[in-house]
Amino acid sequence: MSDNQNLFGKKIAILATDGFEQIELIQPKEMLMEKGAQIDIVSIDQKDTIQSWDEDNWGDSVKVDAQVTDVSPSDYDALILPGGQINPDLLRANDEAVAFIKQAHDESKVKAVAAICHGPWLLAESALIDGCEVTSFPSIKTDLINAGAKWADKEVVTDGKLVTSRNPDDISAFVAKITELVA
Amino acid sequence: MSDNQNLFGKKIAILATDGFEQIELIQPKEMLMEKGAQIDIVSIDQKDTIQSWDEDNWGDSVKVDAQVTDVSPSDYDALILPGGQINPDLLRANDEAVAFIKQAHDESKVKAVAAICHGPWLLAESALIDGCEVTSFPSIKTDLINAGAKWADKEVVTDGKLVTSRNPDDISAFVAKITELVA
Repeated sequence: MSDNQNLFGKKIAILATDGFEQIELIQPKEMLMEKGAQIDIVSIDQKDTIQSWDEDNWGDSVKVDAQVTDVSPSDYDALILPGGQINPDLLRANDEAVAFIKQAHDESKVKAVAAICHGPWLLAESALIDGCEVTSFPSIKTDLINAGAKWADKEVVTDGKLVTSRNPDDISAFVAKITELVA
Repeated sequence: MSDNQNLFGKKIAILATDGFEQIELIQPKEMLMEKGAQIDIVSIDQKDTIQSWDEDNWGDSVKVDAQVTDVSPSDYDALILPGGQINPDLLRANDEAVAFIKQAHDESKVKAVAAICHGPWLLAESALIDGCEVTSFPSIKTDLINAGAKWADKEVVTDGKLVTSRNPDDISAFVAKITELVA
């Protein structure tokens, strides 16, 4: 298989709900599918579709492939957590979503737990970043430092299987690092 | 003056920007004005109006009375921080807004620094809650605990001049406690 298809046979979960930043789900999904990965949009609350946030207003909806309660982290090679201000605030209040993130981090099959923009709030909620180096959208820097992380202003930061990026401009570097860990 | 006018002569700042939860600004403002207080809506980014968030979409706009850079905490008897998922996330990234909150907490004239729902994120950003008892919308509980606070599930929590409440259902208790501290 070509280098362009180096994720062939790999399965990646994107965990999101209403208010995810549109480009932070759509673009990584498309880039990873081009590399051959199968992507599942995993959500909560029995939703069939979830509506994105597109910069300053509600955006497109995407189809949900699975409920977080119906899948296992051991089904996946990576977990991606897009941002948006609303999406992680809703997910972090959902016990099953937080448990899934923790289990994904503990699961040996999962090679990357990757969060972008406001997505790293979920890593703080899941208590996964104490002592780790991370980045994020700058508004949540204080919360991540208070959760024990060392915060760096870089397009992508990797610490073990944790991959974090700051904003949509970092998506290429974010996807490249996920690919490197999963391939 | 009657008990209904026990805030006559008092001046209260409500610091907010786009995405504040509509009822968490409008209702305290009206209740405190009925008690005789003068209310200033203070904002950032030279905005003349700011647009609320009304449960699940953009809501009404309100007029801004002053820019945070043009007023001093010593002008006010209390500072109120409404919630919403978007509003505190924008304010906490604004250095002048965060400085205003810290100065208000240090200012002897200010008798209450009051935050509701997601508003207490700003108290975490301003490093005002280490060792203090607070409440909030439950989704940000982890961030407040990580900032050193003791989190309680009560309609209103007071610690020194800090007043916090959980959600719009607590507005009456929230306003009553602010009134008690300021009157």
